[in-house]
Amino acid sequence: MKITAIRETMVPLAAPMRNADIAFDAMTASAVAVVTDRIVDGRPLMGLGFDSIGRYGHGGLLRERFIPRLLAARPEDYAAAAGDAIDPLRAWAVMMRNEKAGGHGERAGAVGVLDAALWDLAAKAEGKPLWRVLADRFNGGRAPARVPTYASGGHYREGADEARAIAAELSAYRALGYTQFKIKVGGAALDRDKARIEAALAVAGGGGALAVDGNGAADRAAAFALLGALAPYGLRWFEEPCDPLDYALLAEISAAGFLPLATGENVFSAADTRNLLRYGGLKPARDRLQMDISLTYGVPEYLRIVALLEEAGWPRTRLVPHAGHLFSFHVVAGLGLGSHEAAPDGRLLFGGYPEGVAVEDGHVTPWDAPGTGFERKENLNRVFAPLLD
Amino acid sequence: MKITAIRETMVPLAAPMRNADIAFDAMTASAVAVVTDRIVDGRPLMGLGFDSIGRYGHGGLLRERFIPRLLAARPEDYAAAAGDAIDPLRAWAVMMRNEKAGGHGERAGAVGVLDAALWDLAAKAEGKPLWRVLADRFNGGRAPARVPTYASGGHYREGADEARAIAAELSAYRALGYTQFKIKVGGAALDRDKARIEAALAVAGGGGALAVDGNGAADRAAAFALLGALAPYGLRWFEEPCDPLDYALLAEISAAGFLPLATGENVFSAADTRNLLRYGGLKPARDRLQMDISLTYGVPEYLRIVALLEEAGWPRTRLVPHAGHLFSFHVVAGLGLGSHEAAPDGRLLFGGYPEGVAVEDGHVTPWDAPGTGFERKENLNRVFAPLLD
Repeated sequence: MKITAIRETMVPLAAPMRNADIAFDAMTASAVAVVTDRIVDGRPLMGLGFDSIGRYGHGGLLRERFIPRLLAARPEDYAAAAGDAIDPLRAWAVMMRNEKAGGHGERAGAVGVLDAALWDLAAKAEGKPLWRVLADRFNGGRAPARVPTYASGGHYREGADEARAIAAELSAYRALGYTQFKIKVGGAALDRDKARIEAALAVAGGGGALAVDGNGAADRAAAFALLGALAPYGLRWFEEPCDPLDYALLAEISAAGFLPLATGENVFSAADTRNLLRYGGLKPARDRLQMDISLTYGVPEYLRIVALLEEAGWPRTRLVPHAGHLFSFHVVAGLGLGSHEAAPDGRLLFGGYPEGVAVEDGHVTPWDAPGTGFERKENLNRVFAPLLD
Repeated sequence: MKITAIRETMVPLAAPMRNADIAFDAMTASAVAVVTDRIVDGRPLMGLGFDSIGRYGHGGLLRERFIPRLLAARPEDYAAAAGDAIDPLRAWAVMMRNEKAGGHGERAGAVGVLDAALWDLAAKAEGKPLWRVLADRFNGGRAPARVPTYASGGHYREGADEARAIAAELSAYRALGYTQFKIKVGGAALDRDKARIEAALAVAGGGGALAVDGNGAADRAAAFALLGALAPYGLRWFEEPCDPLDYALLAEISAAGFLPLATGENVFSAADTRNLLRYGGLKPARDRLQMDISLTYGVPEYLRIVALLEEAGWPRTRLVPHAGHLFSFHVVAGLGLGSHEAAPDGRLLFGGYPEGVAVEDGHVTPWDAPGTGFERKENLNRVFAPLLD
């Protein structure tokens, strides 16, 4: 199978929200389509990929480096061992030619969105849902009947009566079938954050069903003050309590034992994950790790991360990848990870599930249609439409 | 002073060379021009910036995020405290709005090349060479009369009689006035590397005048084998003996004491530098640090790095920034750092010094023309020409 074209477009993900670290009014994301010479039902077989959120689209990098490398490669450089198919792991090695070690930033997301499209392609070529392809190849064929999911929201928004707005937001998620929730903290005065948390707890039903996310904005004093103040709530986890690369401070916070911790969404490689594990003081029995599969060079690098974690005693169920994109859902299901983070609002490009997929009792049942399912989410389908002709 | 336009172009840096990690045949770099509403001699005052080498150009990121932010900012957001001028430190904060912590990769270089242009602009607005502006602002007015420089080369090239070619290359550098040299290692079998080193030593005159660069390609076993084999040569330093983010392995190698070490060119932030200092086991009295000023978000972040290093007991003279770009020369001179890495071949865009600047006895005397001096290097001048109208 030969890649004949790769098309990409960058779209706004603009949302009137902010966390403790950044605002999202100028956020963007890339959509890519990998076109092949295999004809199915009179049309070329294609794989689709869509960016994660929070790090902007990758159009320039895709056009400058990674798309040209794939297009210049010989088909035998990325051919699967058997059948007329492309092996995403081999295509990944083509993309990373002449890239230096270290500096795991934007290119990790650019490679990740192409990797997502190559897996979508592989699954469609096999006529299987992506989670099944991943489970067969990397999890001994095992895949859960239902995947735990949680509703991620509770951003800072302008306007009065914030606590009531948070309660209304989480109630709407509960009505959709969610039973686990996460809201933002650390972007306002403590009294305001406590009012937001208490409103959320009233809907969640208890600290075990509510996580909070500090987005890495707190310095040492602010982190200790905030975690100390929130410890009595017994929350499910406190996410990104400090700068994501300040492993020593993270280890101090971990040792203080305020709350279970979660971090990793701003760590974009196996090399950085290894340092987080060595120096961050996190505990497999208590904490969670959230590396974003798409922003971390995609599945090939994420598999290296999983291997590092398992070697360090972390069960896969403590992995809760960042961002609710559909690609992430398939990796969570296919590799047997802990939970899928969902932005429940399907009107957002990065929110919700394909048409007809419901959340029930906090779980989503993996679906059977081939590929990732971008085509069965109406607003994403509109984004991809110009790439398909 | 208002920024009225920012122009950029991406050019090939293609060179028929490779190190132990990557080849450079598709390497690119960005050139930028920041145009202002200040009219001097009938033309708008402009600042110029040119990328470092090794991490590709930054055209897409510049156009997608960092140029639009500067153009959208109000002049009062980046105005200097006194005079009709732009403060590069304030413009830097504008560029970094709504950028998340962590993930220090390509964006660090994109911001760095714009930062270089803003400093060139600031120096031209003051009618001073950039090193003088930096020395006055960040080094108590002190600047060295002569700046140590060293000739960086000795790449792997195809062809027979490699040892003779290396000797000829270094002899040419010596004829230009260089007295310190660096060549690549770790990209060939040990016998071949030893022949290359011995040929280089014959020109350099001794291990104290020759450093070698492994470019981070070696695993644990290869690193110990290679450093063990090269220790008897008493080289000036061994650069990037292992993966640039494997701080624990670096600490092991450091403790083994084979040779002085140097690293840091693939560490692109103060946050990553802090981890290198905490966990890498390097010794200020023996080793060197090589963070690339341009690839590390430019001067504002590099100042944070210098502050971290000084706090940890590193004198500025142990800092030897990666890459021979002209911008780096001014920062080395202005902040009083240890040495400037030069690619001596002026036919390369990233090589040599402006017309009329000579290397004498291994040193370069800082020059007096305002700004950075891109205009006085003929091949760079041709790159910038289309941006100036």
